[in-house]
Amino acid sequence: MTNRARQQLAGSRNARASLTMSEPLLSFFFFFSFLLHSAISDASQCSVKGLPLVRNISELPQDNYGREGLSHITVAGSVLHGMNEVEVWLQTFSPGSRTPIHRHSCEEVFVVLKGSGTLYLASNSHDKYPGKPQEFSIFPNSTFQIPVNDAHQVWNTNEDEDLQVLVVISRPPVKVFIYNDWFMPHTAAKLKFPYYWDEKCLQLPQKDEL
Amino acid sequence: MTNRARQQLAGSRNARASLTMSEPLLSFFFFFSFLLHSAISDASQCSVKGLPLVRNISELPQDNYGREGLSHITVAGSVLHGMNEVEVWLQTFSPGSRTPIHRHSCEEVFVVLKGSGTLYLASNSHDKYPGKPQEFSIFPNSTFQIPVNDAHQVWNTNEDEDLQVLVVISRPPVKVFIYNDWFMPHTAAKLKFPYYWDEKCLQLPQKDEL
Repeated sequence: MTNRARQQLAGSRNARASLTMSEPLLSFFFFFSFLLHSAISDASQCSVKGLPLVRNISELPQDNYGREGLSHITVAGSVLHGMNEVEVWLQTFSPGSRTPIHRHSCEEVFVVLKGSGTLYLASNSHDKYPGKPQEFSIFPNSTFQIPVNDAHQVWNTNEDEDLQVLVVISRPPVKVFIYNDWFMPHTAAKLKFPYYWDEKCLQLPQKDEL
Repeated sequence: MTNRARQQLAGSRNARASLTMSEPLLSFFFFFSFLLHSAISDASQCSVKGLPLVRNISELPQDNYGREGLSHITVAGSVLHGMNEVEVWLQTFSPGSRTPIHRHSCEEVFVVLKGSGTLYLASNSHDKYPGKPQEFSIFPNSTFQIPVNDAHQVWNTNEDEDLQVLVVISRPPVKVFIYNDWFMPHTAAKLKFPYYWDEKCLQLPQKDEL
């Protein structure tokens, strides 16, 4: 901003002087306010305190977390709601969308609320890689559990309808090892932690630059 | 059975003699068969082996387990399905029906699928008894979690509609302490273990008389 412009903005000499003198401070103030606001927004979204005991699931944060065709809601979570032993998700997969091929060392139960699809499960985890998975049809009002550490993938293979599932895991927050394909060695599977929906809040304490 | 009756049943002397000779054995055989059949039925209902990975929830055992107005299905259970860390139930409460006032030292999450009702929760577990509980309205698509060891009760207070909930607990099988009322001392609450739906299968190994 030039002095000329500042004069146009500020009518009185004092006001102009004041504006001129405090510009770095003002900039800092606005920048600091922005950071503070961001931090408070993040904190309130990530804070367990002040949450109502009974929550309307349709009002909970819903996002695809960068994964096309996914809608994820953490219904009761470790990071978001202070759970220590179980976590519950509501997930919707649009036609054709799917989880990555992955494994985790926690228990997992699915309840299919609507839609259908295919569960791919490679139970031969004693081998060096998952190998060709078994295929299981999943359907409305069905349930299935994933054996601990078995590589698996849930895929909405129904072209006409969303697949909606309630997912329960133990030992939250989830630590996921992701495979590029079924023949990738177990040892090469890449750890994704925090997982997509836990990233924002689990990373907060590390943001020392704020 | 008289000898005359036996003669009518068995034409030949040998056959009659054989029948006469083996009556105690036959009785034992039928009794043993009955016991064996009962044991096998129980065992197959309680055995994890041979269960399909993907199960139709509407085909799973459903019962009120002696509790009026309740329909309980263990969707994924410790005793029935080999879960170690989480357990999932589908429960329906007819209008006016409710859980006992109870507490447990595991985590618990409810997801209300349909209907409405009231959660009664006494969080002052530091006192000698639960005391007057707080009341929370629960409604379709709501979720709530019960703080570990807090006495609580879920009540279908809606006179017109069933209340249907998915329930998730940690540390299965559940060990429940039941209160007669909100002013019963914590120390007097009565342990119910195995819980209603776990009784049949958890008791099996103790049936030495079989």
